[in-house]
Amino acid sequence: MTLTDSPATHAVGEQAEFDRAGLEILTDEQCLALLPTVPVGRIVFTEGALPAVQPVNFVVDDRCVIIRAMTGSKLAAAAAGAVVAFEVDEYDATTETGWSVTAVGQATVVTNPAELDRLSKLPLRPWAGHLDHVIQIRIALLRGRRLLRT
Amino acid sequence: MTLTDSPATHAVGEQAEFDRAGLEILTDEQCLALLPTVPVGRIVFTEGALPAVQPVNFVVDDRCVIIRAMTGSKLAAAAAGAVVAFEVDEYDATTETGWSVTAVGQATVVTNPAELDRLSKLPLRPWAGHLDHVIQIRIALLRGRRLLRT
Repeated sequence: MTLTDSPATHAVGEQAEFDRAGLEILTDEQCLALLPTVPVGRIVFTEGALPAVQPVNFVVDDRCVIIRAMTGSKLAAAAAGAVVAFEVDEYDATTETGWSVTAVGQATVVTNPAELDRLSKLPLRPWAGHLDHVIQIRIALLRGRRLLRT
Repeated sequence: MTLTDSPATHAVGEQAEFDRAGLEILTDEQCLALLPTVPVGRIVFTEGALPAVQPVNFVVDDRCVIIRAMTGSKLAAAAAGAVVAFEVDEYDATTETGWSVTAVGQATVVTNPAELDRLSKLPLRPWAGHLDHVIQIRIALLRGRRLLRT
């Protein structure tokens, strides 16, 4: 996807808003539209009181981000029940344009068999490892910014 | 840069190590070599007790990551004196390969005039906003992983 054919443009008559840095403030709807357009996002959590961040592939299911983690991994342990951030972005160094979306919400390990069965049918194939934990991040807050050339 | 001409390959005779997920564990030297190869990284901090993450362009200066932030911004406030994480990565969805490097360290706002003068000569031009704060993250910990096709 290029930045110009982004699905998240303002409807006719809507006025874009900008923050103090001159970045366009994206609406929740725009954030949700951009979220699934990239293959890899970054989950942000705390590990031994230090900030930690790990890239993961993911799918969006309703207002949830679904990722996989290995049993016994730091990610699986840290994400269980914690409030985490999940970030995606896309930047073009040539034009110095791009966008980022951050979702914040509680992460839970999915254990309900019916729900696991349903989620296992989503197109979420791990790129590495035997990732037998399914983690669901229910989106409570969305923040999106877009950098356009002025 | 493509993944194949990565500067961070093991020297002849060195044995690559892999983690439980099958990802190659990158050495500090490899992490430092990969860090400046991408234009945008993500600074991870805490904002009102919630995890926060913000993409920024940056330069690497010795064992420090240098970024800019706006006076009065949440990033400038949150990063002053805090231990933060700084993450860069590069993934190819077609080959499902890529790498990520995370640096953890204390962030400080640079106020020393001589140091500010020296840092202002580095090729760090903000993409947006009037970013008059210079933040230096002194790297204390490095973590890098590479995903190769098996």
